[in-house]
Amino acid sequence: MTDKKEYCGLFGVFGHPAAVEKVYHGLFLLQHRGQESAGIASTDGKADSGAMKLHVGMGLVRDVFTPESLAALRNPRAIGHVRYSTTGSSRVENAQPMLAQYSRGQVAVAHNGNLTNAKLLRDEFEAYGSIFRTTNDTEIIMHLLARPSNGGLADPFAAVFDPLEGAYSLLVLTPDEMIAACDPYKLRPLSIGQAGNAWFVSSETCAFDLLGIKYVRDVQPGEIVHITAAGLRSSIYCHPDRIKPSHCIFEHIYFSRPDSRVFGDSVHAVRRKLGRQLAREHPVDADVVFAVPDTGNSASIGYAYESGIPFDIGFIRSHYVGRTFIQPHQSDRTSSVQIKLAIMREVVAGKRVIVVEDSVVRGTTTRGKMRALREAGAKEIHLRVSAPPVRNPCFYGIDFPTTDELIATGRTPREIAEFLEIDSIGYLSVPGILSCVSRPPSHYCAACFTGRYPVPIGQNVGKYAMERHQLSMF
Amino acid sequence: MTDKKEYCGLFGVFGHPAAVEKVYHGLFLLQHRGQESAGIASTDGKADSGAMKLHVGMGLVRDVFTPESLAALRNPRAIGHVRYSTTGSSRVENAQPMLAQYSRGQVAVAHNGNLTNAKLLRDEFEAYGSIFRTTNDTEIIMHLLARPSNGGLADPFAAVFDPLEGAYSLLVLTPDEMIAACDPYKLRPLSIGQAGNAWFVSSETCAFDLLGIKYVRDVQPGEIVHITAAGLRSSIYCHPDRIKPSHCIFEHIYFSRPDSRVFGDSVHAVRRKLGRQLAREHPVDADVVFAVPDTGNSASIGYAYESGIPFDIGFIRSHYVGRTFIQPHQSDRTSSVQIKLAIMREVVAGKRVIVVEDSVVRGTTTRGKMRALREAGAKEIHLRVSAPPVRNPCFYGIDFPTTDELIATGRTPREIAEFLEIDSIGYLSVPGILSCVSRPPSHYCAACFTGRYPVPIGQNVGKYAMERHQLSMF
Amino acid sequence: MTDKKEYCGLFGVFGHPAAVEKVYHGLFLLQHRGQESAGIASTDGKADSGAMKLHVGMGLVRDVFTPESLAALRNPRAIGHVRYSTTGSSRVENAQPMLAQYSRGQVAVAHNGNLTNAKLLRDEFEAYGSIFRTTNDTEIIMHLLARPSNGGLADPFAAVFDPLEGAYSLLVLTPDEMIAACDPYKLRPLSIGQAGNAWFVSSETCAFDLLGIKYVRDVQPGEIVHITAAGLRSSIYCHPDRIKPSHCIFEHIYFSRPDSRVFGDSVHAVRRKLGRQLAREHPVDADVVFAVPDTGNSASIGYAYESGIPFDIGFIRSHYVGRTFIQPHQSDRTSSVQIKLAIMREVVAGKRVIVVEDSVVRGTTTRGKMRALREAGAKEIHLRVSAPPVRNPCFYGIDFPTTDELIATGRTPREIAEFLEIDSIGYLSVPGILSCVSRPPSHYCAACFTGRYPVPIGQNVGKYAMERHQLSMF
Amino acid sequence: MTDKKEYCGLFGVFGHPAAVEKVYHGLFLLQHRGQESAGIASTDGKADSGAMKLHVGMGLVRDVFTPESLAALRNPRAIGHVRYSTTGSSRVENAQPMLAQYSRGQVAVAHNGNLTNAKLLRDEFEAYGSIFRTTNDTEIIMHLLARPSNGGLADPFAAVFDPLEGAYSLLVLTPDEMIAACDPYKLRPLSIGQAGNAWFVSSETCAFDLLGIKYVRDVQPGEIVHITAAGLRSSIYCHPDRIKPSHCIFEHIYFSRPDSRVFGDSVHAVRRKLGRQLAREHPVDADVVFAVPDTGNSASIGYAYESGIPFDIGFIRSHYVGRTFIQPHQSDRTSSVQIKLAIMREVVAGKRVIVVEDSVVRGTTTRGKMRALREAGAKEIHLRVSAPPVRNPCFYGIDFPTTDELIATGRTPREIAEFLEIDSIGYLSVPGILSCVSRPPSHYCAACFTGRYPVPIGQNVGKYAMERHQLSMF
Repeated sequence: MTDKKEYCGLFGVFGHPAAVEKVYHGLFLLQHRGQESAGIASTDGKADSGAMKLHVGMGLVRDVFTPESLAALRNPRAIGHVRYSTTGSSRVENAQPMLAQYSRGQVAVAHNGNLTNAKLLRDEFEAYGSIFRTTNDTEIIMHLLARPSNGGLADPFAAVFDPLEGAYSLLVLTPDEMIAACDPYKLRPLSIGQAGNAWFVSSETCAFDLLGIKYVRDVQPGEIVHITAAGLRSSIYCHPDRIKPSHCIFEHIYFSRPDSRVFGDSVHAVRRKLGRQLAREHPVDADVVFAVPDTGNSASIGYAYESGIPFDIGFIRSHYVGRTFIQPHQSDRTSSVQIKLAIMREVVAGKRVIVVEDSVVRGTTTRGKMRALREAGAKEIHLRVSAPPVRNPCFYGIDFPTTDELIATGRTPREIAEFLEIDSIGYLSVPGILSCVSRPPSHYCAACFTGRYPVPIGQNVGKYAMERHQLSMF
Repeated sequence: MTDKKEYCGLFGVFGHPAAVEKVYHGLFLLQHRGQESAGIASTDGKADSGAMKLHVGMGLVRDVFTPESLAALRNPRAIGHVRYSTTGSSRVENAQPMLAQYSRGQVAVAHNGNLTNAKLLRDEFEAYGSIFRTTNDTEIIMHLLARPSNGGLADPFAAVFDPLEGAYSLLVLTPDEMIAACDPYKLRPLSIGQAGNAWFVSSETCAFDLLGIKYVRDVQPGEIVHITAAGLRSSIYCHPDRIKPSHCIFEHIYFSRPDSRVFGDSVHAVRRKLGRQLAREHPVDADVVFAVPDTGNSASIGYAYESGIPFDIGFIRSHYVGRTFIQPHQSDRTSSVQIKLAIMREVVAGKRVIVVEDSVVRGTTTRGKMRALREAGAKEIHLRVSAPPVRNPCFYGIDFPTTDELIATGRTPREIAEFLEIDSIGYLSVPGILSCVSRPPSHYCAACFTGRYPVPIGQNVGKYAMERHQLSMF
Repeated sequence: MTDKKEYCGLFGVFGHPAAVEKVYHGLFLLQHRGQESAGIASTDGKADSGAMKLHVGMGLVRDVFTPESLAALRNPRAIGHVRYSTTGSSRVENAQPMLAQYSRGQVAVAHNGNLTNAKLLRDEFEAYGSIFRTTNDTEIIMHLLARPSNGGLADPFAAVFDPLEGAYSLLVLTPDEMIAACDPYKLRPLSIGQAGNAWFVSSETCAFDLLGIKYVRDVQPGEIVHITAAGLRSSIYCHPDRIKPSHCIFEHIYFSRPDSRVFGDSVHAVRRKLGRQLAREHPVDADVVFAVPDTGNSASIGYAYESGIPFDIGFIRSHYVGRTFIQPHQSDRTSSVQIKLAIMREVVAGKRVIVVEDSVVRGTTTRGKMRALREAGAKEIHLRVSAPPVRNPCFYGIDFPTTDELIATGRTPREIAEFLEIDSIGYLSVPGILSCVSRPPSHYCAACFTGRYPVPIGQNVGKYAMERHQLSMF
Repeated sequence: MTDKKEYCGLFGVFGHPAAVEKVYHGLFLLQHRGQESAGIASTDGKADSGAMKLHVGMGLVRDVFTPESLAALRNPRAIGHVRYSTTGSSRVENAQPMLAQYSRGQVAVAHNGNLTNAKLLRDEFEAYGSIFRTTNDTEIIMHLLARPSNGGLADPFAAVFDPLEGAYSLLVLTPDEMIAACDPYKLRPLSIGQAGNAWFVSSETCAFDLLGIKYVRDVQPGEIVHITAAGLRSSIYCHPDRIKPSHCIFEHIYFSRPDSRVFGDSVHAVRRKLGRQLAREHPVDADVVFAVPDTGNSASIGYAYESGIPFDIGFIRSHYVGRTFIQPHQSDRTSSVQIKLAIMREVVAGKRVIVVEDSVVRGTTTRGKMRALREAGAKEIHLRVSAPPVRNPCFYGIDFPTTDELIATGRTPREIAEFLEIDSIGYLSVPGILSCVSRPPSHYCAACFTGRYPVPIGQNVGKYAMERHQLSMF
């Protein structure tokens, strides 16, 4: 397992004259899934070597692309990617989509997830003489694709995905087709849409709604979808036994936009239910309920509704604080958190307040917010968290801190409340959270709360993969 | 009256080692009052010619200043300015604060408002041989300050403000003192704060709260406040008869941040009351209440509370759309409005919705939003506006479109609802709005709704000003 | 006298559809006269307030202007300016041309030179209530122009120039006319050209040659030239007694481009003659003659020709070292001088070399070059300087270091050679230098060598100016 | 053979605390060899995966690096690269050095030259399942290096270079060593230097002189030099029969800096001799000799010396015209050539001039220059070219236009003179040019003049390579 975790957004268009523009706007709407780099690859469907176009850059979608760079990419087929990475030394070489030439032509790949057997596969390729230009899992996928042994297969891409372990939602573009695929657990969301004769694939449905695209269906666990000029063709690329839906519950809690539907549920509706469930599990007498914006908003409405306590706005986010914000001196008591998140003193002063937050991970910024509420005159502070305590690492793409850094490590809720200097804390239970989504509890991954990982992790997995697949490189 | 309208934010610090940094952070918190240009002037209190420092630039606070430019400004006394201007040809020459040298040394001036006798004063100065480098009212104020006839006066600044007509909240920095002043109507807010030995002045109190500054009091109508090393010294600079509080009611409706107190009231609390009053004036049976964010948020909570109809989130603002956003082609149905303001389909589809907006001016963007709600499946749309219809121009700094462009011109509310293609519209009444603020109705300017202007406008005023002041230039 | 010294380039076009583009290209060709800021003002000849356009910025011409900014300026009448300033705190506010509005409309002014009575005039204006936004002499000229007393004059501009002392070559643009003027000494060059129906004014003729413009004549000492749609109209604006040609000899030695004609002579031809005269005054037996490029090139050719010693290339300038060059660490022996100026080791090693340089001011960089020659193996180094030792400050626009910093202060040539660690030095004599130009010796200013200043300097001058002009401001 | 031609500069440092800074300054001095992209890779000698650092970017050295990026690279071992490419779609992905991970660790490669069997090797690798991320020859070299079959070899790098055909000067950096190598023809220069305990490698010696580095020797044809902490170790990696020195004569004529020694000769001295030989081969009676700067400078001095005709400066290059220069409109007669290259009218008018240029390829810009001389009044124009006519393509890295575009194609010298509208033209003969360099004529490649290629080109070569090397990939 590499130490690289990536959380990303994918958007693809096949068969639209303004495909590149659509991808650009789609990436805007997926920007919350990755702010580190952005890129678009496109093709006009011709197989000439060098015909595919690529533009990638570091930063936000709005900064990476210009009218000139979009015009240079113009083509009816395009895929795009926004990326968040946890590595300090983020480099443009790691930006996606990645474009490569191999024996069957050009291919661009965009990937969201984390391969748990990445190191193993990489070592194996290196042993066979391959070179790696990046530290991305995506490059491994490209090497798998280029194996000569794929040559005679009906669907070489199926052969590519089979040896992969971990989480991967993928978009691949070749001159002929756009391919979307999900791992057998479907840890990350991926949806298919349609508008006129054009097909669309997006990490989240919010991008469909806003671009006038009809949601068709989700890509299924272990499914590979080929989109060509002839239409959509689908198959399951792995043995049926391997399919085991394990959707990341954190997509509902935190990652996805509330106006998306992921894994069959409206994110906003789920969060509102989490808030109601939270009110049932952890009621408290108070004057007002408000959220830590923006991710706590939906749950706070549910909490207020269920509890009957008035809803209000307690914090205000500033929209103008960007990357170039100059931090105050240490000596200065002003923190950038305060600049970014103002308190509505009028709502808080002299009141018993219930604050709803989506999750508490390290606890340090939460403590800062709680202190600021106290300084603004809150009489009682009751924190309600619409998720259980995070106690375990994620191996499928979420960059939690190490166990030592997690506030819940070795602390009871009461001790956490003491650490946060608040009057009470209430975490939602695991059964509680799973009662708010539509699918059976076994179809979700809640390993960060429970430690029960749907995909086995570590060396053993790797070896098993080797034996099972008998990776024939050539 | 010039055709220049400016809406700005001011922040000043006197006597703090990190004054420039404080101003920088203060301007961040006032960024909503002007995104066109930003600037800071500072002094170490020495009277050497050339000792004052200035840095101005076009764009957002985060883009105008760098750690280097802040370090170069470092001084214990500083004033800053953010500016919105309606002129197309915005130029860096017009950015504020403005710095000038005159016979009594250097002076920097930052101004929020609109002089109704600007053209008259300018013509007069030009007739006496003055040159103007900008189209800003601020430069007129500097010329008034430099008049030799001010030389013998106890307070030359009082003599500067007296001839001015219209709205002006001012911050002036000289090597010796920082001066804050308001026009006799106090159309725009301006507040004084304190932290340790340092004094602060800000357009809005939100900046005080977030920077750990104690709010002291508002600058009064017609008051000039001198802040020096010896402390704060105040006087009324105009004849008491001229003082006539006429606070801009639009500050509460739209301009100010909800976490500010302006004209003695919490903006958020006022807006929440507007929502409750709106529910009383225009009740309707519906399934859900939500706001057009962000300015409609507070009122929508009040509406939901008063009406008992569940509150929810119907629109979501995207945080990543900036100036460099590339607009979709005309041919494309995607609009940047849609990208910026997404609809929570789950909340809207099949529902009778009440949408609360702060005001409707032109009506074109509102119509776009209403159509998007309909397309998302809203069964009934009831728009509730927490202000009366805007029917008249503002001469004191707000850039409303011309009367022809106002949606309320020549239309009844029913006709407006038809234009917006919605089921009903309800505007708050003028008495209703004035019932939600603490001061007597006569102490507010609601001229944009009523046409009753507290400050006489036009040529007559100008002549009157001339006669009354007998402007002795030299 | 201010402590501001400016050395600038002016270029103006009247009556050409591509006037702004011509000015842009003209400024490129005058870039050697100022690399700190650049600007262009233009007009379509209409007198509407606000009709004049201006774009200024810090940096090189190529960086200040974009195709968009040139297109926005497009007009048939335009003036431009490039500026070098010695003040550390260079600010965009000081960039030229300056644009102002006064009672008779808009005016843009660009100025090359240094007013010796600037402080006096400024104080006087401030006493009468004027404000100054910059530290430029140009702003003083604008105040003089705006005086109401100019109103009844046949040529108000003549009244503007009369009170000025010092060096000033000026370009003024109003909606109606472009005005060019020189001080009564004509310390700085200014020439008039023509192409078709369009008129041109340039600091140097090199810009004419390259843009296909016919050189017409120089602006004369004390002359004001009005260029209007009716053509060119000229007069002498000062009393004939004040006219005393005193052309800056340093224009020939160093400042002007060799392909220009200034003060009636080809700069290259003059410099070649300086080299020949230098060979006559300071002959020495050696193997090779070469220049310190680029300003020593012309003289070195003359020296080689006169002496019969072979000419060669000893130094090579790098073209890629710009402002952003990162200096080596102090600990490192590599200096940016070495990177910028490479030695042709093959030409120098084991040779007796004659190095021709245009002038030696501080001597520190020269010493670095001489040491580098020695390290490259030069057997003997004979420095020949095509100018006398600089011993006195310039009050007319050249920024020499203080007398203490001049290498020639308190040192004989022999001592200078010792300081530079070379075998001999030879300076051209003052009579020698004046024998190489066409006009009578009395028509040149060589004050930096001789200390004989053509324009009286300091307080006395100032007072005299006051008495003579009886500056009636109003 | 790919259609990619690259002309580049390499600089490497091993064992110096300021190695990265040295590379930065070295690249400055090699900037003339490539202005499209620049990059530096560095290592601290530790073999941890991910330990090597890389920074590359598009543009000039001065624009690609900042003090921050240099500081981030800081390490005692570093290699750098500047690149010129002829492909329109230049992308940052193609910038060098390239960094990759393979089975034996990390490696960075920088390459100057052109592989004539690139396509063949690439096809072969693709057939075996390799992917290519760029269109650079460098990536092929990396694939060769990663072949498992290299594992047991004493010097895997020798096995890498053996299958390569064409021109390649290489710098390779691994955690342990820096490797320099040249093809068996040594078409491009590469030199080794030393300063203290540190070793240096540079494309040209000019960078040594300026950085205080002692030139040690050239890398020999077919030599591979390993530089490690233990010192320098060298071997010949190919069969001795393949070694056939064929130094590019165009390095002397045009590419190298005159202050470099390449292939054992001072470039400046060679060019001066070319000028003298040119005067002997093509004498003509005239008034003045001057160069087309800068590459014609050295030869023009030789021509003047040999002919006895006075040398002068006829053209002046402007230093301020950069990439952002805005071209004049077509309608305008001003061309950027004129702005960049001014004529010294005084030297040219009424004179019979001899113009010395290094080479004439297309002839179009030369014609522009000749016309400008005529317009400036030249009475007779005699062009003397210090090279023979270019009539054949270069397969080893120089990007000549297609044969159709060469002025010499199908034209006699007389016809060329007519095309250029000049009085006479004289080209240096091939024997003449080869008489000016020290090594035997057979040791130079003059194929662009003669059509006799030292390295066989095309398919046959490729096949031969295959058979000879029996490329065992695994």
